[in-house]
Amino acid sequence: MTVETRSLTDELTEIVGAAHVLTEQELISGFVTDWTRRWTGHTAAVVRPANTDEVSAVLAACHRAGAAVVPQGGNTGLVGGSVPMHGEIVLSTVRLNRIDRVDPVGRTIDAGAGVTVAEAQRAARHHGLDFGIDLASRDSATMGGIVSTNAGGIRMIKNGNTRAQLLGVEAVLADGTVFTRWKELTKDNVGYDLPGLLAGAEGTLAVITRVRMKLVVPPRATKVALVGVESVGGALEFVDTLQRSGLSLEAAELMTRSGIDLVQHHKSLRAPFAEDTPFALLVEVSGQADAQQLLLDALTAGESVIVDAAIEDGPAHRLWNYRESHTEAVGAVSTTPPVKLDISTPLREIESFLAELTVRMRDAFPGVRAICFGHIGDGNIHVNLLDVADDQREAVTDMVLRLVARHDGSISAEHGVGRAKAPWIGLGRTPVDLQLMRSIRSALDPAGILNPAILPSNPQP
Amino acid sequence: MTVETRSLTDELTEIVGAAHVLTEQELISGFVTDWTRRWTGHTAAVVRPANTDEVSAVLAACHRAGAAVVPQGGNTGLVGGSVPMHGEIVLSTVRLNRIDRVDPVGRTIDAGAGVTVAEAQRAARHHGLDFGIDLASRDSATMGGIVSTNAGGIRMIKNGNTRAQLLGVEAVLADGTVFTRWKELTKDNVGYDLPGLLAGAEGTLAVITRVRMKLVVPPRATKVALVGVESVGGALEFVDTLQRSGLSLEAAELMTRSGIDLVQHHKSLRAPFAEDTPFALLVEVSGQADAQQLLLDALTAGESVIVDAAIEDGPAHRLWNYRESHTEAVGAVSTTPPVKLDISTPLREIESFLAELTVRMRDAFPGVRAICFGHIGDGNIHVNLLDVADDQREAVTDMVLRLVARHDGSISAEHGVGRAKAPWIGLGRTPVDLQLMRSIRSALDPAGILNPAILPSNPQP
Repeated sequence: MTVETRSLTDELTEIVGAAHVLTEQELISGFVTDWTRRWTGHTAAVVRPANTDEVSAVLAACHRAGAAVVPQGGNTGLVGGSVPMHGEIVLSTVRLNRIDRVDPVGRTIDAGAGVTVAEAQRAARHHGLDFGIDLASRDSATMGGIVSTNAGGIRMIKNGNTRAQLLGVEAVLADGTVFTRWKELTKDNVGYDLPGLLAGAEGTLAVITRVRMKLVVPPRATKVALVGVESVGGALEFVDTLQRSGLSLEAAELMTRSGIDLVQHHKSLRAPFAEDTPFALLVEVSGQADAQQLLLDALTAGESVIVDAAIEDGPAHRLWNYRESHTEAVGAVSTTPPVKLDISTPLREIESFLAELTVRMRDAFPGVRAICFGHIGDGNIHVNLLDVADDQREAVTDMVLRLVARHDGSISAEHGVGRAKAPWIGLGRTPVDLQLMRSIRSALDPAGILNPAILPSNPQP
Repeated sequence: MTVETRSLTDELTEIVGAAHVLTEQELISGFVTDWTRRWTGHTAAVVRPANTDEVSAVLAACHRAGAAVVPQGGNTGLVGGSVPMHGEIVLSTVRLNRIDRVDPVGRTIDAGAGVTVAEAQRAARHHGLDFGIDLASRDSATMGGIVSTNAGGIRMIKNGNTRAQLLGVEAVLADGTVFTRWKELTKDNVGYDLPGLLAGAEGTLAVITRVRMKLVVPPRATKVALVGVESVGGALEFVDTLQRSGLSLEAAELMTRSGIDLVQHHKSLRAPFAEDTPFALLVEVSGQADAQQLLLDALTAGESVIVDAAIEDGPAHRLWNYRESHTEAVGAVSTTPPVKLDISTPLREIESFLAELTVRMRDAFPGVRAICFGHIGDGNIHVNLLDVADDQREAVTDMVLRLVARHDGSISAEHGVGRAKAPWIGLGRTPVDLQLMRSIRSALDPAGILNPAILPSNPQP
């Protein structure tokens, strides 16, 4: 085993050069632990190929050696999907970091898998356009990573998910074969949507090396409002009012009183409203010159559900601060690493899900605080559980995810399954569905070397 | 062979009842010829199951008998994808015609595969919403059909394609196994996007029996303008102006002078403009109360490319008439059945593609008239070729599709591959891509009974 590993390492060194096969513990530590520090694995080598040919040669070598591989982008995932928990070789896309082209007419960007979201955003803005995906980890998260996890983020209500931005893909299959579908077309109905299949596959079907993504026209004039409401139903009603107002809804983020309190205290912010309200809704809208008036009209129309409201011109960030500081505040005040569960429910279930969650947490885990917030327009709630004892983590996760399933929701809205949610995948998919996924996976990677421990794994050969 | 067929027919009769296994020539003629009358096949039986269980039993019986099956919805396809050219059993979804639910809060519709687009639209409008897909064949085209072909249509620039509307699917695999992913969630990152894979698969992976689709909020106030421009570049520039105006672009349809002339003459319409222009662009926009003023502003901003313009309030149809009468006029004046090719190119290639097409048609096929029109915002052009002699059809198709490929376009933008474009699939996909599709197909339908003659067929067992 050791001899085999060493000979594979030698082969990898021949392909990418000694400087790019990392084996020393100090050098690889950042690649074997995830961002949440929840998952720490080990590996014989981290390989950093410089281009698609090298990725192909690396995978072919691993395939011949029967060595499993975990592809890794910015390693900002929240479910441990890019951590080598079983000693897999880590294939880092960090050097596939070239932006080949921005086409301002066709509104597309061609970028290597290792280009970060922030780099893509900057390149797009340079041409008066924008990248359709934005998320807090923008400075580290990569094109390959957001495609492989089908990331959502705060602009999804306007632009759709990452899969919806993807026009073309270049990827390397498990045996080193290069697959390319490289069209600059929104309409191209010639057979199966293979780029869409690779999106969200969490590196189990192929290693993505380059992507061609859509760019979007940035909104003209944006306004931000933070609105205090008495109920989730009231928040949804106001979102509906905005969507029918003629304004374009750029973001809609729900927060709770306890989350706002936490942030306010942690960041020394003043109270957003004169009156306390159980929920706060942050909305960003865009429109023409009269966006301000239309927003005021919508607030008037929504007065039956609205307790108080504050408005500011975008892109100022005073009001956004209440939302964006949640993650930091939650991490800072919890006495243990927070359990972070990213779930979604149908819109009509959000209210009853949150109400039931509160009661059940209080009954079963009285010491645990739940701070919930998220993208309400997509039914997506980030459930953050604070002060969870180590031996409670699995039980509390199980309780929440089963509750989600009973409310017809998803155990993973935008983070993926990874390792964190693998035990609960049966709550989200039927046996036939899981079997179909396994069949497809087997068809593309019969030897089962790509991220073998996650998603429904290949049937034993 | 005859005995086997008869015994399968008997078995099918037991499943769905004698009234729903059609074998008489007069009864099946509408099922074995497509809408364009270009493709006529034959079959031993047309089976019309009433529900998912019956579809499952029908497929299981065909699977046991090794009999190939062609699923068929409204039979409005334009590429012969639902015609039994090789004597396949026809599985008609016509009786799966129930709308189970419209949810006005979650904005979804649950409908059987045989529900028509027009029925879905009516059900949505009853709740103040709309169905995201609209196309000329709305009264016959079905949910199963538009999903299986990933239909586009005139609202795609606003709402995206059919795949983008699809939230949940129930489908039956080749061996009769029922596959269900039935979530009401826009965010559900638990494994591969199997509904998205079935969308556009043209009935080769499973038979879709029910769908859950998104509904959209209808636009508030719409305006329609028909704009005369000197060039395709000018049309694209004006589309860009509109997209940056704050108005919402509902549709953008390009027409040529020859198409407008044809329609004008055929429908006895008056000339849309005082001056003749080589191209006409129909745009529909929506916005708030001041949509009219914003549209006028945009027309002023675009005056360097605009020769003349006419405006009317939506949803009147005087201006739309110029665009919608194209198909009828083309069919009426051509001395032979028109060759209808649905293609797309990158936006920056449309102008050079059309220019080159004109020259090449004149040189190689001087007797053929080309009338081009389509969804310019998506780069989607419908190339209609008139007066093509029977022995020229293949050569003229080959010429156009090779030209499309040289302009980095797609040989099928929204109609699919079917039988009509099967010989040219290699122009649109690489050998590795085709091999991947075959692998996936084999994984889902190892016996190769689902629409076996289209798309890259299964490898021989």
